[in-house]
Amino acid sequence: MHSDTSQLLARRERVLSPSYRLFYEEPVHVVRAQGCWIEDVAGRRYLDAYNNVPVAGHCHPRIVAAMARQASLLNTHTRYLTEEPVLLAERLLATLPDALGKVILTNSGSEANDLAIRISRMATGARGVIVTDGAYHGTSDLLQGMSPVTGLPLGQHVYPIRMPEGQCGPEQFAALVGDAIARMESEGVRPAALLVDTIFGSDGAIADPPGFLAGGVDAVRKAGGLFIADEVQPGFGRTGAGMWGFARHGVVPDLISTGKPMGNGQPVAALVMRDEIARTFARNQRYFNTFGGSSVSCAAALATLDVIEDEGLIGNARRIGQRLMAGLGPMVAASPLLTDLRGAGLFIGVQTTSADVATAIVNALRGAGVLIGTAGRSNAALKIRPPLVIRAAQADLLLEAFAQALFEVRNINQ
Amino acid sequence: MHSDTSQLLARRERVLSPSYRLFYEEPVHVVRAQGCWIEDVAGRRYLDAYNNVPVAGHCHPRIVAAMARQASLLNTHTRYLTEEPVLLAERLLATLPDALGKVILTNSGSEANDLAIRISRMATGARGVIVTDGAYHGTSDLLQGMSPVTGLPLGQHVYPIRMPEGQCGPEQFAALVGDAIARMESEGVRPAALLVDTIFGSDGAIADPPGFLAGGVDAVRKAGGLFIADEVQPGFGRTGAGMWGFARHGVVPDLISTGKPMGNGQPVAALVMRDEIARTFARNQRYFNTFGGSSVSCAAALATLDVIEDEGLIGNARRIGQRLMAGLGPMVAASPLLTDLRGAGLFIGVQTTSADVATAIVNALRGAGVLIGTAGRSNAALKIRPPLVIRAAQADLLLEAFAQALFEVRNINQ
Repeated sequence: MHSDTSQLLARRERVLSPSYRLFYEEPVHVVRAQGCWIEDVAGRRYLDAYNNVPVAGHCHPRIVAAMARQASLLNTHTRYLTEEPVLLAERLLATLPDALGKVILTNSGSEANDLAIRISRMATGARGVIVTDGAYHGTSDLLQGMSPVTGLPLGQHVYPIRMPEGQCGPEQFAALVGDAIARMESEGVRPAALLVDTIFGSDGAIADPPGFLAGGVDAVRKAGGLFIADEVQPGFGRTGAGMWGFARHGVVPDLISTGKPMGNGQPVAALVMRDEIARTFARNQRYFNTFGGSSVSCAAALATLDVIEDEGLIGNARRIGQRLMAGLGPMVAASPLLTDLRGAGLFIGVQTTSADVATAIVNALRGAGVLIGTAGRSNAALKIRPPLVIRAAQADLLLEAFAQALFEVRNINQ
Repeated sequence: MHSDTSQLLARRERVLSPSYRLFYEEPVHVVRAQGCWIEDVAGRRYLDAYNNVPVAGHCHPRIVAAMARQASLLNTHTRYLTEEPVLLAERLLATLPDALGKVILTNSGSEANDLAIRISRMATGARGVIVTDGAYHGTSDLLQGMSPVTGLPLGQHVYPIRMPEGQCGPEQFAALVGDAIARMESEGVRPAALLVDTIFGSDGAIADPPGFLAGGVDAVRKAGGLFIADEVQPGFGRTGAGMWGFARHGVVPDLISTGKPMGNGQPVAALVMRDEIARTFARNQRYFNTFGGSSVSCAAALATLDVIEDEGLIGNARRIGQRLMAGLGPMVAASPLLTDLRGAGLFIGVQTTSADVATAIVNALRGAGVLIGTAGRSNAALKIRPPLVIRAAQADLLLEAFAQALFEVRNINQ
């Protein structure tokens, strides 16, 4: 270990809460990043095929410049009239179906999801919330109880559904949601919301078949509940099929939350909802968020939208995603360690035979200078989620490293 | 109204949720800000004597430069080893008593307070939380139930105490906390935490006498609960008596939360706690916050700490605060509309005879180019809380405008 690394590790352990965790047994000591490259303290470069926040690439100069310009001009809140939050809301709404008409800006996907639940319960007068059993929806007290993947106790009136690993048929999903509604109604609880990712992220990148969500959404609406699409991970072009993950499912959510990629690293997030839901909420409650909608955060988000559009990142996500799937397909078919390949655009999941195998592959790739992660109920899935600016040559580098990692790990496991 | 203003207002109403509120009947349409000055679209300058976020002054060039530098180098999260969050935690802890030893970084005071409650309940195994009846502690679902000033229903196991307006004696506060403990224990609930501002902000800037919190803190600890100091408003030098509001009370909290001023406008906040509380929490739960502790947010917070130190802002808060109190004192004594003057440093409350009077003074000051706000259970208190860089000449301008506003409002009320 680099001497600077062991020193910094010791300092970190002294001052940060022990509830923090670092990736990898020997952590990656990062000092700079650009595009899809991350550089460590020893000058070693890693291909970032993990991070879903820097959607436009690390430290995109246009976004940095927009933030710096705004920060030197004005950085204030939504109780004064300023243009930036209005512009951002207009730009967001222009990417969404007409039915979604009102925006609230927050600092994180957690704040957006927490508010989405509060608003849904108020708008429906009901309490029940349906999530998947591998879901992660945020860090707040309310959302921890709706994030079974954490292993923490479920919140009151939370009904998880047990997702299959891999694919989920539309009838199967509708039946699962129907069961959850029946369970809650047998306990005298009515459904307020179905809250799911539009690619099930922490469940292990479950994306297919397109459209499988629709029946479940119908079921919850028939029972009086709303559909909240958690777009924190699939949103902003990651699926390669458009800006938002829900579009692949042919459904229009009642509320959508977004976060991680929205400011390319700047803490900015949003909740968008149908007009009448916003009106019902506003009749009962005001809402103010000190930093939510602040000028610099909006400037970062506006610049991120510009880059996604001007650099054609959704198309790139689709093309490079296809290239990765085409390269990974034969490896999954051939390897006894890999059992499934799934995903959309640059949100790719590879199922392995065990958490040990998945961890070994992640570590071998790190050794080869490629960063990916694990996911899924049993942590046996690999999660490949690079910045959307990844190029063909970088994708090929990833595929080569992946093949090599498989070879190494197979030898270890024999 | 400026034509740009009416156009922007219409656009804003179309896209932002109606739960948003603007200050003033005719909103301030802000286009730039520097130091203590805010400029509107018509080129009119306002003295900012309200905003507690830009503690180092709006758009401080040193903080802007630090953010821009970091944003172009690296902006990543705490699962890689990076120096910025460690440096920030070290710098924060250096301003705090030794007992407070572990840091978690978040995006907002709301996220910090939400987590503080969760940790306190886990560490004590108890549920009861005591707050004041004019308290505001954040936007999350959990914290809305602990913010009686919003008028929303109280959360489960939340016990508000009814604060007197103006001063609160130490025995009085201890008795109020004792009553709340007795109430909860009669319902079979044990106290997890006393959560209060160390200058009671939304209660109407209740600061005195110094030390009045101590007896209440003792009482909650004797009953097994923890003391969470909400430093979101009083922290970072605002009291002029040091970095933190709790120091005026001769108490050391078990946990402190901070937020608003920490990054001079950048969304960054922190929870700091005793080591053993952090260890207990970590035994049961991991914690990860995507943007919390991200490099750019840390760089903004580090630069803000530098400016507070290098520009002597705590001393300035004390001196200008005294100047304002000395100027306001005779006006409060002489005016039949004003009944009390209180505060510490640049956190000043002026009690008026009614919400109408307070609003009329706020509007008259806005007409004179000075921005302040209202607070308190009945919104009858004036809240004066300028950036800590305010100069003597600006304070005098505020005092002149205040005297003039009083004169105008007295005439209106006759």
